[in-house]
Amino acid sequence: MTVGVWFVGARGSLATTATVGAAALAGDLVAPTGLVTELAPFAGLGLPAIADLVIGGHDVAETSLVKRAEALAGAGVVPQVLLAAIEPALAEADSRLRRGIHPEDRANPLDAVRRVRADLARFRDEHQLERVVVINVSTTEPAVVADPAQASIDVLDAALRDGRDVLPLSSLYAYAAFQAGCSFVDFTPSTGARLPALEQLADQRGVPHAGRDGKTGETLVKSALAPMFATRNLHVRSWAGTNLLGGGDGAALAEPDRRESKLESKHHVLGSILGYEPDAPLHIDYVADLGEWKTAWDHISFEGFLGTRMRMQFTWEGCDSALAAPLVLDLARLVSGAHAGGHRGGLDALAFFFKDPWGVDEHRLETQFQRLCDWAAGLCGPR
Amino acid sequence: MTVGVWFVGARGSLATTATVGAAALAGDLVAPTGLVTELAPFAGLGLPAIADLVIGGHDVAETSLVKRAEALAGAGVVPQVLLAAIEPALAEADSRLRRGIHPEDRANPLDAVRRVRADLARFRDEHQLERVVVINVSTTEPAVVADPAQASIDVLDAALRDGRDVLPLSSLYAYAAFQAGCSFVDFTPSTGARLPALEQLADQRGVPHAGRDGKTGETLVKSALAPMFATRNLHVRSWAGTNLLGGGDGAALAEPDRRESKLESKHHVLGSILGYEPDAPLHIDYVADLGEWKTAWDHISFEGFLGTRMRMQFTWEGCDSALAAPLVLDLARLVSGAHAGGHRGGLDALAFFFKDPWGVDEHRLETQFQRLCDWAAGLCGPR
Amino acid sequence: MTVGVWFVGARGSLATTATVGAAALAGDLVAPTGLVTELAPFAGLGLPAIADLVIGGHDVAETSLVKRAEALAGAGVVPQVLLAAIEPALAEADSRLRRGIHPEDRANPLDAVRRVRADLARFRDEHQLERVVVINVSTTEPAVVADPAQASIDVLDAALRDGRDVLPLSSLYAYAAFQAGCSFVDFTPSTGARLPALEQLADQRGVPHAGRDGKTGETLVKSALAPMFATRNLHVRSWAGTNLLGGGDGAALAEPDRRESKLESKHHVLGSILGYEPDAPLHIDYVADLGEWKTAWDHISFEGFLGTRMRMQFTWEGCDSALAAPLVLDLARLVSGAHAGGHRGGLDALAFFFKDPWGVDEHRLETQFQRLCDWAAGLCGPR
Amino acid sequence: MTVGVWFVGARGSLATTATVGAAALAGDLVAPTGLVTELAPFAGLGLPAIADLVIGGHDVAETSLVKRAEALAGAGVVPQVLLAAIEPALAEADSRLRRGIHPEDRANPLDAVRRVRADLARFRDEHQLERVVVINVSTTEPAVVADPAQASIDVLDAALRDGRDVLPLSSLYAYAAFQAGCSFVDFTPSTGARLPALEQLADQRGVPHAGRDGKTGETLVKSALAPMFATRNLHVRSWAGTNLLGGGDGAALAEPDRRESKLESKHHVLGSILGYEPDAPLHIDYVADLGEWKTAWDHISFEGFLGTRMRMQFTWEGCDSALAAPLVLDLARLVSGAHAGGHRGGLDALAFFFKDPWGVDEHRLETQFQRLCDWAAGLCGPR
Repeated sequence: MTVGVWFVGARGSLATTATVGAAALAGDLVAPTGLVTELAPFAGLGLPAIADLVIGGHDVAETSLVKRAEALAGAGVVPQVLLAAIEPALAEADSRLRRGIHPEDRANPLDAVRRVRADLARFRDEHQLERVVVINVSTTEPAVVADPAQASIDVLDAALRDGRDVLPLSSLYAYAAFQAGCSFVDFTPSTGARLPALEQLADQRGVPHAGRDGKTGETLVKSALAPMFATRNLHVRSWAGTNLLGGGDGAALAEPDRRESKLESKHHVLGSILGYEPDAPLHIDYVADLGEWKTAWDHISFEGFLGTRMRMQFTWEGCDSALAAPLVLDLARLVSGAHAGGHRGGLDALAFFFKDPWGVDEHRLETQFQRLCDWAAGLCGPR
Repeated sequence: MTVGVWFVGARGSLATTATVGAAALAGDLVAPTGLVTELAPFAGLGLPAIADLVIGGHDVAETSLVKRAEALAGAGVVPQVLLAAIEPALAEADSRLRRGIHPEDRANPLDAVRRVRADLARFRDEHQLERVVVINVSTTEPAVVADPAQASIDVLDAALRDGRDVLPLSSLYAYAAFQAGCSFVDFTPSTGARLPALEQLADQRGVPHAGRDGKTGETLVKSALAPMFATRNLHVRSWAGTNLLGGGDGAALAEPDRRESKLESKHHVLGSILGYEPDAPLHIDYVADLGEWKTAWDHISFEGFLGTRMRMQFTWEGCDSALAAPLVLDLARLVSGAHAGGHRGGLDALAFFFKDPWGVDEHRLETQFQRLCDWAAGLCGPR
Repeated sequence: MTVGVWFVGARGSLATTATVGAAALAGDLVAPTGLVTELAPFAGLGLPAIADLVIGGHDVAETSLVKRAEALAGAGVVPQVLLAAIEPALAEADSRLRRGIHPEDRANPLDAVRRVRADLARFRDEHQLERVVVINVSTTEPAVVADPAQASIDVLDAALRDGRDVLPLSSLYAYAAFQAGCSFVDFTPSTGARLPALEQLADQRGVPHAGRDGKTGETLVKSALAPMFATRNLHVRSWAGTNLLGGGDGAALAEPDRRESKLESKHHVLGSILGYEPDAPLHIDYVADLGEWKTAWDHISFEGFLGTRMRMQFTWEGCDSALAAPLVLDLARLVSGAHAGGHRGGLDALAFFFKDPWGVDEHRLETQFQRLCDWAAGLCGPR
Repeated sequence: MTVGVWFVGARGSLATTATVGAAALAGDLVAPTGLVTELAPFAGLGLPAIADLVIGGHDVAETSLVKRAEALAGAGVVPQVLLAAIEPALAEADSRLRRGIHPEDRANPLDAVRRVRADLARFRDEHQLERVVVINVSTTEPAVVADPAQASIDVLDAALRDGRDVLPLSSLYAYAAFQAGCSFVDFTPSTGARLPALEQLADQRGVPHAGRDGKTGETLVKSALAPMFATRNLHVRSWAGTNLLGGGDGAALAEPDRRESKLESKHHVLGSILGYEPDAPLHIDYVADLGEWKTAWDHISFEGFLGTRMRMQFTWEGCDSALAAPLVLDLARLVSGAHAGGHRGGLDALAFFFKDPWGVDEHRLETQFQRLCDWAAGLCGPR
């Protein structure tokens, strides 16, 4: 059984790292560190093997995957020693990448959608894939402009036929994916499939989707720590966070409207877990010097017995692509498994992976993990 | 229904804070922040109300509780404004405190045990208590010297009759408590009831016990954070910790053999949660200047996808007594509830509260909490 | 010899703490911790004793100093035990406070100035003060609106006579102070005396002035640490800072234009010391919960030999008033000493105290201290 | 003018990094970041150029410098891209390395000394070096065992002639260096030239020496920060430090007696700068995982005005070799300059580089730098 993974943003740091990693894992060159689906609870569930994933994708950039991988090796994200061994696999993946939707293509959105659909269909046919999972890992978009056409698939179809620009890029890809019978994963805070019209379409086509905004850093830690305060009945008075980001992601998030979009999806976590909203200023700063790395500092002021004030602080120094890439492969395996198992529509059991999970207001990491394991256990055996 | 709480170490910072807090809560002067048993899952289970707890205890020190409370107010542990209102309650609790076992009393351990038993019996009778929970909150002892007499209750009884000094202080108290039909909680790393002979005795007498070593600081955070690394399949390479402690606890732990005893019970957590033992140097330093406060710094080096090295650090600045005191009251309520419900022997469901929990190798905080809630739900209604 | 200290913002946290401290020091109730002028190099220079300072001031608030001191004691800034002993001194100081310039008074700025002058003259006469130092410790103002009238004293005088609103509040006070023959200190980032017209006036009147923006926290640490990177030839790539402020100062700085004014004066330090401008994002966040306290986190990424990247981080948890109050008393003594010694105009030797020092681009703390000591040594002996 | 640099421990991480760096600088392949002697105050003083340094040395290890450099490149200390270009220079340096004194050689210490002398003489002759600086960068030794023979050169000579083992290894090298007319630098906490007999010998032979224990991490930061507390009259109550070290240095320091030797030289700094000894627990932990890196966490508790307690914390994540290597080259240039300028005996003006500086109790970094610049300015021009 081979399964296709189609990255929107296929030449970015995250997709490149995932592609490098998939090749290295297929060649048994590295340990599967960071892959959730390699943990014991996911063994024997019949999920596709990493070696059975075929990677393709869209991008507007044109730098080759081999060049991108070299740059990532220079930045310490990918081990230099792997490059030679996986170069053929990268070159092959590169040959499967297609030209993404450019700003000028949006003059006629339906044409763009048709081209994406055709690319997906050809990818599936050429490689005789049982299923394709489209995963959005492209740059965070500004918050979407609401439009009545987003409310139902019929109105949306009509609006697109009229050439109206009512969907952001990420949603055009989701629309095309669903029409092509592919499942869709939003790994960014962008809109993607998160519109009533598109959720309706996924249901109609019988395909699953998951999202949104991969939980890989400060929010991950929050979702592990906040339950401690909740179950110990310690009152969090303020939880201030600062995120220093380098690299492409940092530069994009330096634009205020994209940043808002990101901050929005980080804000739900505390209130949901604690049951009240502490004062929680949150910053994202672009510090070019940090490259592919990000550092977060969180300062938590809390109150214990008899009102005694105490403090906790943490810093998290992570490499975004190294944290996100294995999750993207996990999602490809799990969403493909769900598709095979007949799931359609939003997958709330995948909340473990996301800052802004679909269909559920459960942000406690450990509880999300239990829910994920229980759900995965129900995806029965080899298909 | 009134329930007795008998502190071993009743004039220490922790017991004093708990006594102050119980009085303030009974008088509705403070919010129940920090009390786990005031969370929703514990409502309606028929646990004794805080106002129904009668506090007594042993200590070798003689400073009055009122004086101790004033000192704690000076140190910022107890709010100055509470003192006047609760002074009568403190004075009353003070009148219930008895002379603890002094070093010289150990020449004849059986006499010491008899005196403790008599004190417990009188406490129960005078205040018409349904049950008494004895809670050890005294200074950490050095690691116990093994003795064959600790292996079974018959041999132990004989050894004590022979005047042999085969039990550490904390275990003498546990022995006396069980003989008096009281339950026993070890909130310190000392031996307490953690000997085969004493566990046998508790079973014979039909009383429950719980322990050991309250989880209130660095280890608490570890048990919340380590599952994040485990479920994300991130490989922890090293987890180094430094604890700066002031106050009485710090001074006691500055003695190497007592410190070892403390460090021992902190070391199991990571290995149990992660499934392997990372390099984990751990220090406890006495810094008199910090008074009732402690600061921990942990540095975690971990490996993600493709072996990429990342780091997390945290500091935790807490007031030991303010963190521990509500848990001690929680344990009094829960162990009394267990006793009422017919539980006997070690209570593994209370692992949530302890660094070195009885009878179970489960250290994940959230899982421990779920287990606690499930167990508590089975302690059925008003009795 | 008695010297007057006239606070603009006399009922604020800073001035109240300084007034409490001066009373406590005069009564020998506390050690002179935090006072620079009590260090060895300042002994025997004939500076006025703390006991010889008479404190008065303006404020638009009306809460009594005694009430303010009680609130500060509750917040842990002022020791509770001092209050009773210094209450008479606070009440006396309170009787010397006058109504500050209200927004509505600015309809006729010259009237406001005349009233301030009269208050200063009466203060000096009533208490037979040799000299008066006016110190601005009021809330940070938004950046000043430039006006041609600020360029020379003659044009300014004419504009004020015409009733034109060409000076911010802090500068109206400086104008009045100079006209009254008083020296002036800007402890805030506001404009104060920092306008050509006012500097000209100070020269004409023969009075000294100093400022601006007391260096008490993150910038203080920067000015101590940055020289280390410079003299070791370590290349600072980025130096990111986040400041969490509670209290009145934090709330004022939550207003974007006041914050800009503050950030502006923090930005010069690094460039001046390092000789180049690293990427240095800087935030100020208002976190009400922190009360009188502030916490800063700085993350420094630097490059060493062969380009190796390294990192330093620090947190600074300070109480603003406790850090600033002794410096304000130091400045009163030193500026009064300078006035006595015949200094007129800006005092660049006081750069040690300020984020944005007058007349000098020297920000290295240790060098500033040496310069201060050398200058002070030249303020000859007992007068 | 060519000058020889002779490393004791020439195949260690530090010497290898210095050798790599000297070759890269000579070839203009890197910027001189981290080199103090490349700062403006040292221009035009006639110090030898980096390209004029000829590197040789002793070691008991046998791994080639090329292999060592590759390992350091793998650990991120040395840029991979440099290796090819500097390989010839490394191979050449390798050919100049000689077998160090092995434990078994100490049966006859005088023989060992004679061999070292001969190696130094041959090195000087073969390369026509004007001067040779011997720099000890080998593993930290346990504290020296005192012996009367260490008190004067005559007694020492006699003891060595008698075959007595009265000098630690580092001192045997210093002895040989002085006898060969070479200057000597101790970059470690070992004894080296720090014995009366050896200082006498250096004076007799007219050679300078400098040391001890390079200041590159936590102590460097302390010496920059502690003056801030001193000049602001802030009372440091406690200053607790934890150092996590990987690599060879960490492993050596895991042996308690070597660690003591290291801690000893770190302890003077605070007391000297502050004028009193705060509570200052200090740890060194070996964490193999950290490799060539070290992380320090310092927690400073201090008291300000009216006794208000405040806190500062910092972490320092540095690469030991990258921090130390340029200083070793600086010292080679400066000590050679001093030798040329006729200085003999201990050089107290070099305190800026050391934790335990010779002949001076000045630990303030900025003051040490000023002293260094003034002294260097007196080493007159081109020779």
